[in-house]
Amino acid sequence: MLPTGPAAMAETRACGLFGRLKTAAGPVWTDYVDHPFVRGLGDGSLPAAAFRHYLIQDYLFLIQFARAYALAAYKAETLSEMREAAAMVSALIDTEMALHLEYCADWGLSEADVTATEEDLATTAYTRFVLERGMAGDALDLHVALAPCVVGYAEIGRALSGAARAGTPYARWIDMYAGDEYQEIAAGAARQLDVLAAGRGGAGREASLARVFTQATRLEVAFWGMGLAVAEGEGRKP
Amino acid sequence: MLPTGPAAMAETRACGLFGRLKTAAGPVWTDYVDHPFVRGLGDGSLPAAAFRHYLIQDYLFLIQFARAYALAAYKAETLSEMREAAAMVSALIDTEMALHLEYCADWGLSEADVTATEEDLATTAYTRFVLERGMAGDALDLHVALAPCVVGYAEIGRALSGAARAGTPYARWIDMYAGDEYQEIAAGAARQLDVLAAGRGGAGREASLARVFTQATRLEVAFWGMGLAVAEGEGRKP
Amino acid sequence: MLPTGPAAMAETRACGLFGRLKTAAGPVWTDYVDHPFVRGLGDGSLPAAAFRHYLIQDYLFLIQFARAYALAAYKAETLSEMREAAAMVSALIDTEMALHLEYCADWGLSEADVTATEEDLATTAYTRFVLERGMAGDALDLHVALAPCVVGYAEIGRALSGAARAGTPYARWIDMYAGDEYQEIAAGAARQLDVLAAGRGGAGREASLARVFTQATRLEVAFWGMGLAVAEGEGRKP
Amino acid sequence: MLPTGPAAMAETRACGLFGRLKTAAGPVWTDYVDHPFVRGLGDGSLPAAAFRHYLIQDYLFLIQFARAYALAAYKAETLSEMREAAAMVSALIDTEMALHLEYCADWGLSEADVTATEEDLATTAYTRFVLERGMAGDALDLHVALAPCVVGYAEIGRALSGAARAGTPYARWIDMYAGDEYQEIAAGAARQLDVLAAGRGGAGREASLARVFTQATRLEVAFWGMGLAVAEGEGRKP
Repeated sequence: MLPTGPAAMAETRACGLFGRLKTAAGPVWTDYVDHPFVRGLGDGSLPAAAFRHYLIQDYLFLIQFARAYALAAYKAETLSEMREAAAMVSALIDTEMALHLEYCADWGLSEADVTATEEDLATTAYTRFVLERGMAGDALDLHVALAPCVVGYAEIGRALSGAARAGTPYARWIDMYAGDEYQEIAAGAARQLDVLAAGRGGAGREASLARVFTQATRLEVAFWGMGLAVAEGEGRKP
Repeated sequence: MLPTGPAAMAETRACGLFGRLKTAAGPVWTDYVDHPFVRGLGDGSLPAAAFRHYLIQDYLFLIQFARAYALAAYKAETLSEMREAAAMVSALIDTEMALHLEYCADWGLSEADVTATEEDLATTAYTRFVLERGMAGDALDLHVALAPCVVGYAEIGRALSGAARAGTPYARWIDMYAGDEYQEIAAGAARQLDVLAAGRGGAGREASLARVFTQATRLEVAFWGMGLAVAEGEGRKP
Repeated sequence: MLPTGPAAMAETRACGLFGRLKTAAGPVWTDYVDHPFVRGLGDGSLPAAAFRHYLIQDYLFLIQFARAYALAAYKAETLSEMREAAAMVSALIDTEMALHLEYCADWGLSEADVTATEEDLATTAYTRFVLERGMAGDALDLHVALAPCVVGYAEIGRALSGAARAGTPYARWIDMYAGDEYQEIAAGAARQLDVLAAGRGGAGREASLARVFTQATRLEVAFWGMGLAVAEGEGRKP
Repeated sequence: MLPTGPAAMAETRACGLFGRLKTAAGPVWTDYVDHPFVRGLGDGSLPAAAFRHYLIQDYLFLIQFARAYALAAYKAETLSEMREAAAMVSALIDTEMALHLEYCADWGLSEADVTATEEDLATTAYTRFVLERGMAGDALDLHVALAPCVVGYAEIGRALSGAARAGTPYARWIDMYAGDEYQEIAAGAARQLDVLAAGRGGAGREASLARVFTQATRLEVAFWGMGLAVAEGEGRKP
């Protein structure tokens, strides 16, 4: 029997551009998907302060992420690409950000707490790197720079889904990314990389794309790290 | 009794930035809104060939227009600005372009006729000027470059609405732009110019904005002109 | 004996990306390099009014052309690419534009005549298409959009160089583009396309690059055409 | 007697846009120009490891800084603005980067050491913020984002110039920024802000510009901080 469902889809993608970019990123990819922050989500050992810090920064991240999809719509070369990118902007602004704020509220963070916070260095570095790389490069560079986040979170969700069932306080977060809906989005994003690559010379520029992907992944590592650093800083307070 | 409805709204805008930009454009604005093409729409004397040429080019224009709103979403500095721009992209791609193709079909133009046509020089000049000016400048420059089209069509629609009632074959086109729905969109776009200007130093840069507006209006004049030139070319054929 | 010199170099390029793009452009390329305007330069039959119109628009073109190289410097991925692009901006602004104005003066056009003129539709269309395509795409798209101009003028110069010796009033213009200095610049630009293509997946995106190249060439055809149209317009005056 | 020389010039600027932006940044500006890293440069207490880390990152910064000036050349609205920006790109790439590498060599850092290093989080955050803000905004936003660095270093140089005479090992660094040549560059950059603001509505957008300036200054603080953190990390090693 052939495997079906999102997990199978994700499996399939291993032989696509996304899989090859992951391989090229090597240990940087592992640093990201198996980061102490991620493990702490899985076994529940992540300090709540670290998670709250992350939640706030992730909201600020979403704003820039929506701008990145607006840029993708501008850079699209077909109407269907443009439609998908614009739908993503609307989904992020009209739905995801509100859901994110509700989830923040469950963790005791008011909308005011969230929106009054400044961006972390890691948030600025990652988001502006993606936007700027996407502007200087083309639509493929942009989607490659977005992939560690979009597709990587699905991989993290799947890896932690067993943990979620075992009752970590972060189960809801894990369930969201492990769930079919998000897995489909991520699989679609991975497929889109191959479609774009087919028309934009992906094979001949994989060394260049791998540099973009690895750098974006490194910045994701720093994004996890900032959350931990804050919690440690709080822990160290006298 | 106070005037109400879109016409009143449009009236009100005369004292806003849009009204001042129109004044600064002077005769170029008149060349645009009172162009022989426009008069031909009103009295029905416009050759059908000119209108068909225009309809096709207007479809190609819409694609770039959608990209301009994607750029506006990228350049937006508030979530509500971003939301409006992204909604505009989706409305254009998901609804307007399909309606446009239906209307083309009523004029005997198949989707294949429309999409197989190359952009006219005037279409390329206008759309790329707007996109490039919007990229080199800021969100205000971009919206000012879009305004002769977005807000100007509402003015043209209102001016011709009496003509439409008198039975020109272009009545449906006129009704669309004279109708409340489009008038609201245009009034909203004019209001948005004032909002953007308030935060982006509009008053201190009106000379610069007027150059952008006037140049965009000049390119609209050329856009009407291309349709007429084609019809004249056909008319001159032996 | 191996052929040497710029002509040999140009010959060599026929098997590079530039040669393949020309082949893909087919009759559009011929329309450009063998345009009536070009033939008129060669046999001296081009009306002086057409040439003067062209000279003025070419100056306005140079301003945007310098901006395109500034964009290329921004989009460069190596220091040497950035250095070359920045040197090109400086050469254009510090030297070429002054030489151009001197040459205009020889044709009776003062600096004020030149700088007070508005851009033609063809000038706006071509320059903004290149800038916008270069922004939406990557450095390779940008250089491909510039190539019909940069490399094409060298081909035109070579083709007309015999004519120049026979005494057309446009000999100086021809000599400039047929001369070793310009031929080297053009050959360097053609080589650079291959270098960029090697790192940016050129082979896998030639269909897409060919669309950009052909469209840019079409806009060059329109640029020649504008000059002729003006002269014809003047000729037709009562 | 009227005060003369760069110090007077700098004084004069206090009443220009730059001075107002500094005031608006308030304590963030002080955090930057009076940072422990800066004080360590002045009294010689800065660990050499921190300085070496800074020198390497500053080289990587210069690459992006050159790209920012290329972007400024693209966004320029006059030939003289474009000329100045392009000259800055060339000066940075052709001269400053080589001088920087020579200076690095004096501190025992080979070119290979420098160019093989990855960007720090602070380097990525600051440079991409500037580039992206400059792209989304206009030329004024871009130059405002660059000003904390360009003009701020001159202020730091002046403040430390007495210290330099007292013999800190960082005297040469201080002398460079305290010297007339750099002071002129910085004064020119401050004047340029006022020129740009005059045409781009600076007065009406100072709240918005102040946000850009303050955020860029905050990222400069982080840039100093990274150097210190590295040295502390080394110092903490057992």
